[in-house]
Amino acid sequence: KSTVTIGLVQALTAHLNVNSFACLRQPSQGPTFGVKGGAAGGGYAQVIPMEEFNLHLTGDIHAITAANNLLAAAVDARILHESTQSDKALYNRLVPVVNGVREFSSIQLARLKRLGINKTDPGTLTADEISKFVRLDIDPSTITWQRVLDTNDRFLRKITIGQANTEKGFFRQAQFDIAVASEIMAILALTTSLADMKERLGKMVVANDKNGQPVTAEDLVFSSLFWLLHYLGYKLSVCIFQGTPVFVHAGPFANIAHGNSSVLADKIALKLVGEGGFVVTEAGFGADIGMEKFFNIKCRTSGLVPSVVVLVATVRALKMHGGGPNVTAGAPLKKEYTEENLQLVADGCCNLQKQIQIAQLFGVPVVVALNVFKTDSHAEVDLVCEIAKQSGAFDAVPCNHWSAGGRGAVELAQAVRKAASQENSFKYLYNLELPIIEKIRIIAQKVYGAEDIELSPVAQSQISRYSKQGFGNLPICMAKTHLSLSHQPERKGVPTGFILPISDVRASIGAGFIYPLVGTMSTMPGLPTRPCFYDIDLDPDTEQVKGLF
Amino acid sequence: KSTVTIGLVQALTAHLNVNSFACLRQPSQGPTFGVKGGAAGGGYAQVIPMEEFNLHLTGDIHAITAANNLLAAAVDARILHESTQSDKALYNRLVPVVNGVREFSSIQLARLKRLGINKTDPGTLTADEISKFVRLDIDPSTITWQRVLDTNDRFLRKITIGQANTEKGFFRQAQFDIAVASEIMAILALTTSLADMKERLGKMVVANDKNGQPVTAEDLVFSSLFWLLHYLGYKLSVCIFQGTPVFVHAGPFANIAHGNSSVLADKIALKLVGEGGFVVTEAGFGADIGMEKFFNIKCRTSGLVPSVVVLVATVRALKMHGGGPNVTAGAPLKKEYTEENLQLVADGCCNLQKQIQIAQLFGVPVVVALNVFKTDSHAEVDLVCEIAKQSGAFDAVPCNHWSAGGRGAVELAQAVRKAASQENSFKYLYNLELPIIEKIRIIAQKVYGAEDIELSPVAQSQISRYSKQGFGNLPICMAKTHLSLSHQPERKGVPTGFILPISDVRASIGAGFIYPLVGTMSTMPGLPTRPCFYDIDLDPDTEQVKGLF
Repeated sequence: KSTVTIGLVQALTAHLNVNSFACLRQPSQGPTFGVKGGAAGGGYAQVIPMEEFNLHLTGDIHAITAANNLLAAAVDARILHESTQSDKALYNRLVPVVNGVREFSSIQLARLKRLGINKTDPGTLTADEISKFVRLDIDPSTITWQRVLDTNDRFLRKITIGQANTEKGFFRQAQFDIAVASEIMAILALTTSLADMKERLGKMVVANDKNGQPVTAEDLVFSSLFWLLHYLGYKLSVCIFQGTPVFVHAGPFANIAHGNSSVLADKIALKLVGEGGFVVTEAGFGADIGMEKFFNIKCRTSGLVPSVVVLVATVRALKMHGGGPNVTAGAPLKKEYTEENLQLVADGCCNLQKQIQIAQLFGVPVVVALNVFKTDSHAEVDLVCEIAKQSGAFDAVPCNHWSAGGRGAVELAQAVRKAASQENSFKYLYNLELPIIEKIRIIAQKVYGAEDIELSPVAQSQISRYSKQGFGNLPICMAKTHLSLSHQPERKGVPTGFILPISDVRASIGAGFIYPLVGTMSTMPGLPTRPCFYDIDLDPDTEQVKGLF
Repeated sequence: KSTVTIGLVQALTAHLNVNSFACLRQPSQGPTFGVKGGAAGGGYAQVIPMEEFNLHLTGDIHAITAANNLLAAAVDARILHESTQSDKALYNRLVPVVNGVREFSSIQLARLKRLGINKTDPGTLTADEISKFVRLDIDPSTITWQRVLDTNDRFLRKITIGQANTEKGFFRQAQFDIAVASEIMAILALTTSLADMKERLGKMVVANDKNGQPVTAEDLVFSSLFWLLHYLGYKLSVCIFQGTPVFVHAGPFANIAHGNSSVLADKIALKLVGEGGFVVTEAGFGADIGMEKFFNIKCRTSGLVPSVVVLVATVRALKMHGGGPNVTAGAPLKKEYTEENLQLVADGCCNLQKQIQIAQLFGVPVVVALNVFKTDSHAEVDLVCEIAKQSGAFDAVPCNHWSAGGRGAVELAQAVRKAASQENSFKYLYNLELPIIEKIRIIAQKVYGAEDIELSPVAQSQISRYSKQGFGNLPICMAKTHLSLSHQPERKGVPTGFILPISDVRASIGAGFIYPLVGTMSTMPGLPTRPCFYDIDLDPDTEQVKGLF
């Protein structure tokens, strides 16, 4: 997908002379050193400088890690402090006399207001008001705010924290997620202004109190988080290849978040390209995941209407959907993939057809970009394009940007330009006002092709809790495997007759979505036996990096 | 200390017209949001831009966190993979056939060499050689490499990791330290070139194998760490105030590391100021900690010879050493500190005298900089300066840079310039060839004034292990409280007659020092009941930050 995004923009800019911009996600460092390697496109369609792209870049992920973990530390420290101090001691510490003066900070005044206590003089609170004010009364068993790291560290998937004597027995089970899974990353990708970002950070729910009411970052530390993060809105890294500008900004996890590049980058890019210009923005995974979330979540936030869907296909992936053998990273490719096999391609095109149909649900024209590999035969390429067009695609064209740069994607650029001039009847898939369960069912049936959904008891109680707490009108961000249209990775093609199991339902209130878990979704990748870091090396004299591809 | 460093350089540059440079440490973000607040100096002697100084800055700490934790993840993942796979399976994964070719990576070739296996063709290793090659055989109970975060998170002081089913029962106890305590930060501060940095990263010891031999980063992931970090050598942030340049580079923890600004910054600054110019570089804590480590560790690495020691004193601290009541952050100051009290000052000056004597052990002239507060009386100020000069200081002068900027430190600058023209007989306190125990005893007796040292059984066995492993000739980096010359924080003035307890002895082989723990030293600060983050806020319209001081 990254190479198609870049190749397409190269073709638009350098060959069709259309103002255009690519908007990519910032790659997570964890997988760079794990199994994935660099993530800057490849061949003659890549982001430069490739090294900086993969390493730190704007520092977004680092800053988000810091903010995320400051909030996590504040939650546990607060529980400890409340458990070991009287109301009076807490109040004296929270509102101390400084140089003879005792006053509330602005965060504390806001909390008083939320509690319905309209006082500003710390000396006038009643004992009951003091108790309400000082006690967030967090129920430790309901904490949903996790610590994060930008490292593939499987040993942090489930841990017990607080086991030192200084924590006085307040240990509990917790976990680290990969940093890009932080709700703060999703907020950065969805926010539209500084004021909006501050509001979203304040609304993040970290746990419930013992009365079942949500405890938010606003009650803890959100102003500091905002300070930590406020400049990220400006840090769009710009990289250029073949005269083509690229914005790299934010990179939310595509598993449990919405996995799209940022609203801010899109909006700024749109302003820069002007009328008639093109902005090509990347969405994670296929039409069932990245695209569905792009439309239902990101477009709702940004208010922007997409002109064209570019659906990326490869002969190899279609052969897998047609029943070809499994592909293992590192192992040599089976002959089904290196030799012409029209039957496998034809059988697998049902998946492509379904992906096209999903895009059409939203009323936007679809152009299929077939990313051509040197092992693909002409007949295979022609067959895919033929079936795609029969299946409702506006057009379907082979692309050779990897080997030829923008020149290899000129046909794609022309098709996209033509498709964009078509009438557009963009619409969302569901109304926000529908009950959470209904929204999940619509996605499961219309997009995935499920018979129905099945909720675990946990999922049911979470849904009723969120509905009661007033979060029922948020869009849905499904956390489902990208390896199948269903919840079962091994079911290729177009699975039917399955019931989609919803094991749990969680919420990112600040980012603004509910995310149902379909089966178990890992939020912390691991390192394989031979991670990529065995290949990466740097010469201290020349400072040339090796092994990044 | 930061304000004196900055004020002195302001005076040298702007008032004495001497080329000069300040070298400061990058502050850790953890304490900024904990109890300490911003760390950019203050008043008219501060680093600008203050906001960036406290936030992310060059990204050093973030990059170090990423590298540190990648190594930690690699250690645990490797133990898991070795425990669950046969030699053959490991070998096939570590040295896979890629596009029909099977070859060792350069990291693997280096490992074969260290093992004495002079082969380059993966097909020719014997079963025994394969077993040696694939098994690091790490003893989990000896892992000394900890994960780090730049967050004051007390709940991570002692944790159990690896409790998810995917880790198959390989849980163990571990901990997170504050990021600046990472050995990699100490390496960044001590390294002199890229080649040197690569070598140091490779030498870092993470654990022992089951034969008691050290397992180093070289056997795991060090090339990638090097790649992650290599650009940090160039990222000296420069901040200017009153026309004065400041380098901010690296900030190793002053508790368990050496707590000094970087060798690279000093060397580059020296080049820039030219002959006759001044570089003022900051060391953490007092003469017993920061200065002793500066001389014995940093100067040995850099080969640089200091011209003058500037010893910072305050009337308030001396009154505490003279028996004044405890000072609690947040609580109003007792009258002993707000009113003139010459007796307390006189009694406390024994500590100043001892600090001067410590500096003199190294043969460098001492100038005492008395940082004047508005509550200090003239008589108090005069008394301190008088006693300091009687105690062997080359000079002792009051400084008012907080209220007056460089102008308030002109007298100090003149004294420093004069002292620097003196003959210099700089020497180290101990020879590296002495046994570890002897080196510790010399510091304890000559610097701290201890009767003797007492080693715990753990400390004894660690010392004999390090000596056996060939690490006996490294300098010593004592991990001792900075609140007393002794190991007991409450013993002010000049404690005598105490036996210094060494509870444990650890090593940072890459950074190049052995660090004995004097009593228990926390490597992860916590958040107080009312952390600084209650005061920090940012206006989304004006983007002005509040509450950072």
